[in-house]
Amino acid sequence: MADKPARGLADVVAASTALSDIDGHAGRLSYRGYDINELTGNATFEEVSYLLQRGTQPNPAELDGYLAEFAAGRVIGPLAAADLSGIAARQQPMEALRSLVSLASADDPDARSNESAANLRKAARLTAQQPVLIASYQAARTGREPTAPDPGLGTAANFLLQLSGEKPEPRAAEILDACLVLHADHTMNASTFAARVCAATLSDMHSAVVAALGTLKGTLHGGANEQVMLGLEAIRASGGDPLEATGRQVAERLRQGEKIMGFGHRVYKTEDPRAAHLRKMSAELGAATGDDTYYRMSRRMEEVVFAEKGLYPNVDFYAATVYHYLGIPTDLFTPVFSASRMAGWTAHVIEQHADNRLIRPDSEYIGESGLSWVPLGAR
Amino acid sequence: MADKPARGLADVVAASTALSDIDGHAGRLSYRGYDINELTGNATFEEVSYLLQRGTQPNPAELDGYLAEFAAGRVIGPLAAADLSGIAARQQPMEALRSLVSLASADDPDARSNESAANLRKAARLTAQQPVLIASYQAARTGREPTAPDPGLGTAANFLLQLSGEKPEPRAAEILDACLVLHADHTMNASTFAARVCAATLSDMHSAVVAALGTLKGTLHGGANEQVMLGLEAIRASGGDPLEATGRQVAERLRQGEKIMGFGHRVYKTEDPRAAHLRKMSAELGAATGDDTYYRMSRRMEEVVFAEKGLYPNVDFYAATVYHYLGIPTDLFTPVFSASRMAGWTAHVIEQHADNRLIRPDSEYIGESGLSWVPLGAR
Repeated sequence: MADKPARGLADVVAASTALSDIDGHAGRLSYRGYDINELTGNATFEEVSYLLQRGTQPNPAELDGYLAEFAAGRVIGPLAAADLSGIAARQQPMEALRSLVSLASADDPDARSNESAANLRKAARLTAQQPVLIASYQAARTGREPTAPDPGLGTAANFLLQLSGEKPEPRAAEILDACLVLHADHTMNASTFAARVCAATLSDMHSAVVAALGTLKGTLHGGANEQVMLGLEAIRASGGDPLEATGRQVAERLRQGEKIMGFGHRVYKTEDPRAAHLRKMSAELGAATGDDTYYRMSRRMEEVVFAEKGLYPNVDFYAATVYHYLGIPTDLFTPVFSASRMAGWTAHVIEQHADNRLIRPDSEYIGESGLSWVPLGAR
Repeated sequence: MADKPARGLADVVAASTALSDIDGHAGRLSYRGYDINELTGNATFEEVSYLLQRGTQPNPAELDGYLAEFAAGRVIGPLAAADLSGIAARQQPMEALRSLVSLASADDPDARSNESAANLRKAARLTAQQPVLIASYQAARTGREPTAPDPGLGTAANFLLQLSGEKPEPRAAEILDACLVLHADHTMNASTFAARVCAATLSDMHSAVVAALGTLKGTLHGGANEQVMLGLEAIRASGGDPLEATGRQVAERLRQGEKIMGFGHRVYKTEDPRAAHLRKMSAELGAATGDDTYYRMSRRMEEVVFAEKGLYPNVDFYAATVYHYLGIPTDLFTPVFSASRMAGWTAHVIEQHADNRLIRPDSEYIGESGLSWVPLGAR
């Protein structure tokens, strides 16, 4: 038995993976050996999803086949569809996705098989399905008829199309595609780890990604991007010059020991490479929309937090304004994160099942012992 | 950074807990300092659930209040109820419970709060609700009207009543109650750990127990009790003398290197204390039903596995025949496990939220590096 608990398992190696690698000191992230700085803008989300799930760059024929699987996967099965309006009316987005993906197993012919080929098919299907669930939820809660996907468009463009009902600008789709690439995998983050703990009991892929969705929901994980935007909106709504208000309020909150959402990361000791890409996208989109206030507020916030605490922005920080400028409702930011990370979660389930061992840690007991149970009448 | 991965986190201390403690060498399990040998037969499931969730033995007034919370919790909310017939027709029991508990958050007024008081209320509600979901699923898939709970009965008796539509024998309810006590918590087992990984992102209790349900589903975890029964049924159905067939087939499978479900445990190095209680219950119920063949087959299997491999039966082994003799359908064995473990899962979420730190382990990268992305046209 180990003696001391590693609180939060920080620096404890829980599993081996060939999917992604972080060099926290150099600020590098790679997927299967390809640096994300090279992938971003050069590889589509579908190519990256294929790379993660199937292990190599797809050749043109392989990519065609994979895109056809995605196109076929852009549907909501009857069980989830039957419940969509009730769920959209009663559950918040991440609660709704947890329910909808759980229901979706009923309409996946491979749901009950952990065989390698079944897992590959499910991984593509779940990754194709996730943005459709999000957009359909949005349509349902706003009382709009769902928009059919366009078979000529990729995942990012289809998502923007189905979300708003209008075909997106090509550049907007390109930027969202790059965001999906940037969020696709990130070693043993909490939601991915939850998926692997689940899969390691030889449970199935739907159960594992439902566990991951519930885990991503937390504000210390995927929920952070929404919190960043809510923070920016609150500062702007407080009146006065937004940049001055940003500097003043953030400094004040840091003095009071408050945590500023979107800064710092357990693994990166320098700038998160994803943040650098997202910052550029935020600047470009802010300029294009003609109101880059939120971008400039973010820059100011970044300066103050770095000056006071030496902390760098993480992936959630500039993702917030990018999604905002893309017209995505704030409470769908974490769902968009899930649409990307589904590629990685499913790849981790495939990897876990391919060389499985139950993940069952130990615990340190800190309670009382040797107590005697007193009968009810004598209490 | 740690150097070597602890495969499956065996012996790695992932968290501190005051909820349960195992002495794997002595074969002892205790809940908050009370040995389960003392609790079994002396404490009801509700008292044990209170102990786990609220920290102490309830006095009579506290127990009355808690039982009233349970009675009020024996309902299915409108969102889950609306979907029950479709789910019962299309999803297997553990898939269905994953969906139903996810949907149930819509009808829990505390679903979105992680405050201590809200967590305590949700823990009681989820624990009261779980057997009702299972029984209602069974009624729905067999086309029977749901049976209303009896406010004069406890959790175990109400479950048997709602499951079959008939009031159970008092001794059957007593034995099921003791089974629920025995399965209520077990330190950092995989499903409990999944719940804590989820809760540690500051996600909510419903998300955490949905993650736990998906994790329990696996055949290396809660799914094992069902596999044990299916194994016994297959041997009996193969014809000949069931005891002779058991001895022969098990020995043959061991010779071929197969794993026999229901034996061995990562933590216990001697007999699992829960198995000793369940063995007695199985013997009693077998005798009472007038056909103790499955019990005697289990004994024979135990002898052969111990003689050949030195392995002891774990909690799942005799739980299988006990549940069978209680008239519970085989594919509801793992759900019954979940009805008990819900008490522990929710207590672990309360404990995690009370002193939280994100659970985010490290991973060892074993893939390639420094690859260059080849454009599609050049592949």
